[in-house]
Amino acid sequence: MFHLNKRLTLSAICCSILSMQVLAQSPQSSLEMATVQLPKNIIYLIGDGMGPAYTSAYRYYADNPETKTVEKTIFDRLLVGSSSTYPDDDTYVTDSAASATALATSHKTYNGAISVDHQHTPITTFFEIAKAQGKTTAVVVTSQINHATPASFLAHNESRRNYDEIADSYLDNLINGQPIADLMLGGGTKYFVREDRDLTQEFTQLGYQYIDKLDELDTIESLPALGLFAPKGLSYALGSDDPLRLTTMTRKSLDLLSAKKSSFVLMIEASQIDWCGHKNDIVCAMGEMHDFANTLELVKAFIDANPDTLLIATADHSTGGLTLGRSGKYQWKGKLLQQVTTLPNVIARQLMDDTSVLEKSESFSTFLAHHIQFEIDARAMNSLRIILKDGIKQAKALKVIEKELKHFIDKATYTGWTTGGHTAIDVPIFAYGKGQQYFSGHMDNTEIAAKLIEIMTPQRVNKK
Amino acid sequence: MFHLNKRLTLSAICCSILSMQVLAQSPQSSLEMATVQLPKNIIYLIGDGMGPAYTSAYRYYADNPETKTVEKTIFDRLLVGSSSTYPDDDTYVTDSAASATALATSHKTYNGAISVDHQHTPITTFFEIAKAQGKTTAVVVTSQINHATPASFLAHNESRRNYDEIADSYLDNLINGQPIADLMLGGGTKYFVREDRDLTQEFTQLGYQYIDKLDELDTIESLPALGLFAPKGLSYALGSDDPLRLTTMTRKSLDLLSAKKSSFVLMIEASQIDWCGHKNDIVCAMGEMHDFANTLELVKAFIDANPDTLLIATADHSTGGLTLGRSGKYQWKGKLLQQVTTLPNVIARQLMDDTSVLEKSESFSTFLAHHIQFEIDARAMNSLRIILKDGIKQAKALKVIEKELKHFIDKATYTGWTTGGHTAIDVPIFAYGKGQQYFSGHMDNTEIAAKLIEIMTPQRVNKK
Repeated sequence: MFHLNKRLTLSAICCSILSMQVLAQSPQSSLEMATVQLPKNIIYLIGDGMGPAYTSAYRYYADNPETKTVEKTIFDRLLVGSSSTYPDDDTYVTDSAASATALATSHKTYNGAISVDHQHTPITTFFEIAKAQGKTTAVVVTSQINHATPASFLAHNESRRNYDEIADSYLDNLINGQPIADLMLGGGTKYFVREDRDLTQEFTQLGYQYIDKLDELDTIESLPALGLFAPKGLSYALGSDDPLRLTTMTRKSLDLLSAKKSSFVLMIEASQIDWCGHKNDIVCAMGEMHDFANTLELVKAFIDANPDTLLIATADHSTGGLTLGRSGKYQWKGKLLQQVTTLPNVIARQLMDDTSVLEKSESFSTFLAHHIQFEIDARAMNSLRIILKDGIKQAKALKVIEKELKHFIDKATYTGWTTGGHTAIDVPIFAYGKGQQYFSGHMDNTEIAAKLIEIMTPQRVNKK
Repeated sequence: MFHLNKRLTLSAICCSILSMQVLAQSPQSSLEMATVQLPKNIIYLIGDGMGPAYTSAYRYYADNPETKTVEKTIFDRLLVGSSSTYPDDDTYVTDSAASATALATSHKTYNGAISVDHQHTPITTFFEIAKAQGKTTAVVVTSQINHATPASFLAHNESRRNYDEIADSYLDNLINGQPIADLMLGGGTKYFVREDRDLTQEFTQLGYQYIDKLDELDTIESLPALGLFAPKGLSYALGSDDPLRLTTMTRKSLDLLSAKKSSFVLMIEASQIDWCGHKNDIVCAMGEMHDFANTLELVKAFIDANPDTLLIATADHSTGGLTLGRSGKYQWKGKLLQQVTTLPNVIARQLMDDTSVLEKSESFSTFLAHHIQFEIDARAMNSLRIILKDGIKQAKALKVIEKELKHFIDKATYTGWTTGGHTAIDVPIFAYGKGQQYFSGHMDNTEIAAKLIEIMTPQRVNKK
């Protein structure tokens, strides 16, 4: 097992490896960058698993049926290019850890690595540099805060699976005696409030305000602070008490960050787009996309009011092999998904709780109408009822029923999937605000990070 | 049936509808555009069906195994944004006719329409404007030259299926008494040399040099000229006498066009990426992508030597629901496709011609090694042999065997597909040369055309 240097000394790493890396990868000359104004604050958003099929899908899902025009989305308005995401091996398909490491450090590594190289040596992250510079730092995610993406900004570990170790390192991996993040919002009490160690207490002793309920967000009055709102990830957007919970957490973060005089870096992850993709659940995915779209709108509005800030957004990879076409039909009926008000998994659970509704056509169609409100002809309805009735008799009935419901929705909307894993397809890049001109066209994920680090440390470039 | 105005008078249409359209859709102010130098020549390339999965796939397919670096492709070097492609109905999934109409005219229409609106009224195309301005005009495609994409630049018809009518209109739809294209290279003798009408003779009478063999391309010494090298589309790149036949035709076109003093517009279509996509044939698709990549390299080199030229490239839609991941595996083995030297369809035909090779493992593996040169373990080899042996007994055996071979290659490379048709996913945009700055970020396909028309007719904008 890999043991982390408890107090990573930044200067040694960043002034040797990183400066060379940054200079080598930068297409923009240092002189050119030095002569323009650089942003004070950086807001880095990651849509986990959000390949180009997701942003295209969201446009047609969100298209206003009252107008003939197909409205451009926030993704369209901010798009500047595409990013390759391959890890440092011959698979070409990355996991979230290797890709987040690339996005946080500008270095490729192996799948599963949390900001360490093949020899398990820590690689300095964007957030460590920011913290060493005295910037205020924040992460806002819908996964547990020690999940692969946020972990790659805040920790170093040979394996993303070492959740407890990663959580520990949020307190043990210090810069100038302080934890790397001044604000962390997301899930993860399972890992932070353990029998062997209660990390939330230790954070409190360090001066962090700790809350564990999302609706208490407004009780946070200043930084540092920690909010953990679920044992692992937060509830999925659709059906959640606050379907725009990423937007809500982002709003509060921006309030807290902008109240401080120092500049800030904020990493926001729409973590669960990926989780819906793994489940091949388009209903779930559009709910997460809607929350992320609103988050982007909010950040854009913040920059319009605070123009000294850069928004950079991308995805770490695409998940599920999602496509918007199926079985030869030239149509994608994503707008129907607006009329699905319950996640297939939840519908399945309700059916398992009361299988009697599957007995008769009438009772089934009454039940289904509570959850799936688009028109279903009698024949298709009955066929679905019989399939589900058969499903409840099978082993792992809940999974079977959920799968059949998703399959039904996919067929109705002509949605296609090819894998429960990730794909090698390039993902979109979005930028807005001061410094957005440094991001355009095709960039590898390491080049995005290299550019951000360069923007944050122009003195390193100027010293050349 | 829709009857075409035999001699479309351009002035009426373009000075009313188009100028308004162009002004309304242009994000760049007319003043700004008027003050910069505009390109003399425009080269417009369309990768039919080439969604983002194809350009990502090509990078990993073409990756040099001798180096650790994943080399950037010409697609990466030229990428500037992404385009939406939806047609003018509620399907969101376009066909090639509606999308080519958008790309040629800046107007949305219905699927199947060749540069006409819902009332079947012709919409002026980019090529008609160019020809009316006295520019030299050329189309170079690997489909028949009267296929949906080239047809939408040169003709007007209520249906892409009216191949003979469309071919006729290449002689009948005249601008200033001349056919719209001064050079046409591709396939289509089936439609141009018919019992009822030999259009090639009529073109010859108008002064066009006509050839029907690709290896006679160098006999064309000047324009106008017509080259039809196949009854319908040209042979697929892989296994073709000239696997870079689009590149070859493009090279000759650029020689002919640059020998003339007048400015030119050249439309180049890699038509068969789409056809491979419809067949869900990744081997076929990578062969076409390689030809298109070489064509783009050639055009880029031309612009480096002739900087008064704009390259703009995109796709009309994505085909097949291609993704680079399958069955949960985090890997895409596209490099294996370099070792497949024969199209699955051709392998299938050879097997049908001599089914005896399927009898024994040894003879089958010897046979297969001529076509698929990557390592296949004995078990998988035998399993494939048994599947194919069963396949030859079935009705439509050729199709069954081809399908099983494609399925085998897909499984070996972890390639996924979701449809035999098109999808609604956004496609990449590429630009290079003078005027490339007008193309960036997200653009609808109509906005690409509007910008090109505006670049070509700045006087219309300046007269405002």
